[in-house]
Amino acid sequence: MFREEVEAFMRRFQSDLCEALERCDGGATFSTDTWKHEEEGGGISRVIQGGNVLEKGGVNFSAVRGQLSPQFLKMLEMPDANYFATGVSVVLHPHSPMVPITHMNVRYFEAGNGQAWFGGGIDLTPIYVNPEQAREFHRLMKEVCDRHHPTYYAEFKKWADDYFYNQHREETRGVGGIFFDRLMATDEISIADRLAFVHDVAYAFAPFYTRIMNENRDLPYGEREKQWQLMRRGRYVEFNLVYDRGTKFGLHTKGRIESILMSLPTLASWQYNFTPEPGSLEAQTQQYLKKDIDWLNVQ
Amino acid sequence: MFREEVEAFMRRFQSDLCEALERCDGGATFSTDTWKHEEEGGGISRVIQGGNVLEKGGVNFSAVRGQLSPQFLKMLEMPDANYFATGVSVVLHPHSPMVPITHMNVRYFEAGNGQAWFGGGIDLTPIYVNPEQAREFHRLMKEVCDRHHPTYYAEFKKWADDYFYNQHREETRGVGGIFFDRLMATDEISIADRLAFVHDVAYAFAPFYTRIMNENRDLPYGEREKQWQLMRRGRYVEFNLVYDRGTKFGLHTKGRIESILMSLPTLASWQYNFTPEPGSLEAQTQQYLKKDIDWLNVQ
Repeated sequence: MFREEVEAFMRRFQSDLCEALERCDGGATFSTDTWKHEEEGGGISRVIQGGNVLEKGGVNFSAVRGQLSPQFLKMLEMPDANYFATGVSVVLHPHSPMVPITHMNVRYFEAGNGQAWFGGGIDLTPIYVNPEQAREFHRLMKEVCDRHHPTYYAEFKKWADDYFYNQHREETRGVGGIFFDRLMATDEISIADRLAFVHDVAYAFAPFYTRIMNENRDLPYGEREKQWQLMRRGRYVEFNLVYDRGTKFGLHTKGRIESILMSLPTLASWQYNFTPEPGSLEAQTQQYLKKDIDWLNVQ
Repeated sequence: MFREEVEAFMRRFQSDLCEALERCDGGATFSTDTWKHEEEGGGISRVIQGGNVLEKGGVNFSAVRGQLSPQFLKMLEMPDANYFATGVSVVLHPHSPMVPITHMNVRYFEAGNGQAWFGGGIDLTPIYVNPEQAREFHRLMKEVCDRHHPTYYAEFKKWADDYFYNQHREETRGVGGIFFDRLMATDEISIADRLAFVHDVAYAFAPFYTRIMNENRDLPYGEREKQWQLMRRGRYVEFNLVYDRGTKFGLHTKGRIESILMSLPTLASWQYNFTPEPGSLEAQTQQYLKKDIDWLNVQ
């Protein structure tokens, strides 16, 4: 059955990713908590804390079956109250402000009316935007997309810009990446093709992010960079609690709270009315937190 | 005009409260930022940072007139898109985990269809619940309520329990207090009576909270208490970003972001799956974070 094939892929991916991250971090290993869903199914939460590079990170697998409340059905624009959902969701918060926060997610849904689709994406939230690294990241995302469909990158890059956006701040969460949802079978593209794409997205993540970890882990920083990191993490918290659909879905479908909120950092800060000095690296980063930047060609 | 009388009261209250808090804190004064609303009106944000007792605190006045979007009209269950709103909103985050976080708010709404009402309340979020202090707080709230109506306290205490509730954690934000909304004129109670009640709530706040500041400011604490405080502040952030109607109203009506989010603490923390040791003071506090505790008679 296709559903079981997808679930098995998600389990394997979780395990492979944790292994790759542990190997790169070198200082801590992932703990494992398994949990059961209130309705049917459950998950495996794997969390790393106090590593050499990673201060706090989670790689969550879940596969749950349930029924959405009428109110939530509408809010999520779901075609049917019955659902099956499986996926892996990842958030990594490094100690160093020189190593970007990252998030990635691959997921599969089946609604009771027979509709099925994939969603997912990868995005990067540097504390200090390094345009060259952002460009390399986007080029890699384009490469993965291009292998499957010529319009994927352009579409999914825009989707990430629009999605990872703190509307109340008029500011993107980071330098974006790709984001996609409701990738169903069409006349042209089979659901197996969709899975092949999602598979490639998933397995592009570790090679890319561990390279960034290695490139940036020994860069020096001080108190000022740390303070800026804590504030940027505050914006990350704002996005996750106010807008993130995965978080909303989890909170409203009685998911395991500690697994859903493992995306929040160990420490975050809010300073009233903080404005970076004009011309500073912090001000420069703020300039990059905009939609529609052509990261492929940024200098 | 009644509306102007209410607005003048709100302005006076903001200024009186800041003065009382500055006098008690003794280490810092409130800054003043005035801002204009995108539609009509504006506000005065007064913020204290780095005081002797108060690490970060805001006392916001605003008076704005505008039009709600259809979607938001429904979400807030408002009778008309046109509105006038004025109020004072207060959040105080002390340095010391021995001094409770507090929030209070008094507000007045007029809808385009002529309906007008008051709302408000005071609530207390101790990092370590001191049952005696919580009892004194609730007794004072009852006293203020009883002066105006025999059912106010019971009603508004329950309202606070239900409102200041982190549903996803099944945990109250703190020890509650009173919360009320949509207090309109009735056959029995005039709108001027409502204002008199709101006035008494407002002016009960400073004497009570400055007493707690003074009682608790010199209590000793260490690293363990500080860590617990940062985690409890994390829950405070969760409530404000996920549930708080005032925050939602502000974010959706394009209020001034820095004024709305001054309610967030300088520093907050999330630890994966943290559970207090059985029998510890932290575990005891968690036991108190429940609805329907009879605080008036707690031992």
